[in-house]
Amino acid sequence: MIIDIFRATTAICAAFSNQIKTIIPVKTIEEALKYRGNDYILASERHGKKIEGFDLGNSPEGFLDPSLRNKTIVLSTTNGTNAILSASGADIIMIGSFLNISAITQKLIHINKDIILLCAGWQDKFNLEDTVFAGALTEILAVGFDISQDDSAFCALQLYQFAKNDMKSFLLKSSHYNRLKHLNLEADILFSLKIDETHIVPYFDGYAIIC
Amino acid sequence: MIIDIFRATTAICAAFSNQIKTIIPVKTIEEALKYRGNDYILASERHGKKIEGFDLGNSPEGFLDPSLRNKTIVLSTTNGTNAILSASGADIIMIGSFLNISAITQKLIHINKDIILLCAGWQDKFNLEDTVFAGALTEILAVGFDISQDDSAFCALQLYQFAKNDMKSFLLKSSHYNRLKHLNLEADILFSLKIDETHIVPYFDGYAIIC
Repeated sequence: MIIDIFRATTAICAAFSNQIKTIIPVKTIEEALKYRGNDYILASERHGKKIEGFDLGNSPEGFLDPSLRNKTIVLSTTNGTNAILSASGADIIMIGSFLNISAITQKLIHINKDIILLCAGWQDKFNLEDTVFAGALTEILAVGFDISQDDSAFCALQLYQFAKNDMKSFLLKSSHYNRLKHLNLEADILFSLKIDETHIVPYFDGYAIIC
Repeated sequence: MIIDIFRATTAICAAFSNQIKTIIPVKTIEEALKYRGNDYILASERHGKKIEGFDLGNSPEGFLDPSLRNKTIVLSTTNGTNAILSASGADIIMIGSFLNISAITQKLIHINKDIILLCAGWQDKFNLEDTVFAGALTEILAVGFDISQDDSAFCALQLYQFAKNDMKSFLLKSSHYNRLKHLNLEADILFSLKIDETHIVPYFDGYAIIC
């Protein structure tokens, strides 16, 4: 399962809650540009900013525009889309965020397989927000199930339990927020912490994200 | 700085507190065997166990034997020695453990450079004990210094502050302990949590660990 809370997997869940058709994740800006025209919506972000000339960045609320319904979005971001593309090989590659946390947890329980929570992080480094989400998901999975956690899931759970009563304050300490605060990311943070906004669980089929 | 609390860097600090001469870290059992004879002490561990025919494993208390004084030890372990060897390129590669935590922190403050805390982990995965030590060290560095932490140092500090009043219980939850408990690792865990047993800060010069 892929996690990039600020902001790719949150944006993807928001997009599907808005009834978009599909999202094609691509690695580079150049690959995204090949789709220009033909009714594709181009969305791309690097270092927190929308790329000049693209229709969207990866600010989740941008994906809620009604004009996007039934459209295909081509998406390339700094961390999240790379994490999705690197996961090929897993049986099922699901897209998780706080927006669909209950739905995705139910799906994981139903599927009943070993679970890897792949935190996208920031440029291949550990980050706070994806880890805290992994802890939240671990907490739900642990209720009523005898799950075996490795050390990283155990620590993610500890951090979530420490943070959960005031997630916003905790995550405002994240390097991601501090790196991007001049871009007015605070609205995106608040949006990304909304719980159970959708019951949809998007998944990557090796070419596109569908649901 | 290299951290492998259970047990390589703890064992290395113990060895130097016992006035051994030097430690040559090597990747493989085969490399270690090339040093056989010639008054070298061979120490090696795989999956928690001493290798048949070697003088020592990596149980820290084994390195306190008075007969080891002024000897050169050739050491190969599952995680710690690989971490040491992979760090070549850093200006100074120091060896840290709870046994020398105050001494190494003072040295880091004195040197006044950017610090990378390289947790050896377990087979390239995150682990609990190295992270908690990184948090302890971050806490000391933060007193009186305006340090900038990335998200991993911030989380390590949170975990340490949660764990510090009962480190033993916290670390008995670690996957490392649970993987190796049939090997009676508990004595090693207690030894590894001893604080400031030595003022020596060993460092790796690219070939051998000296102090």
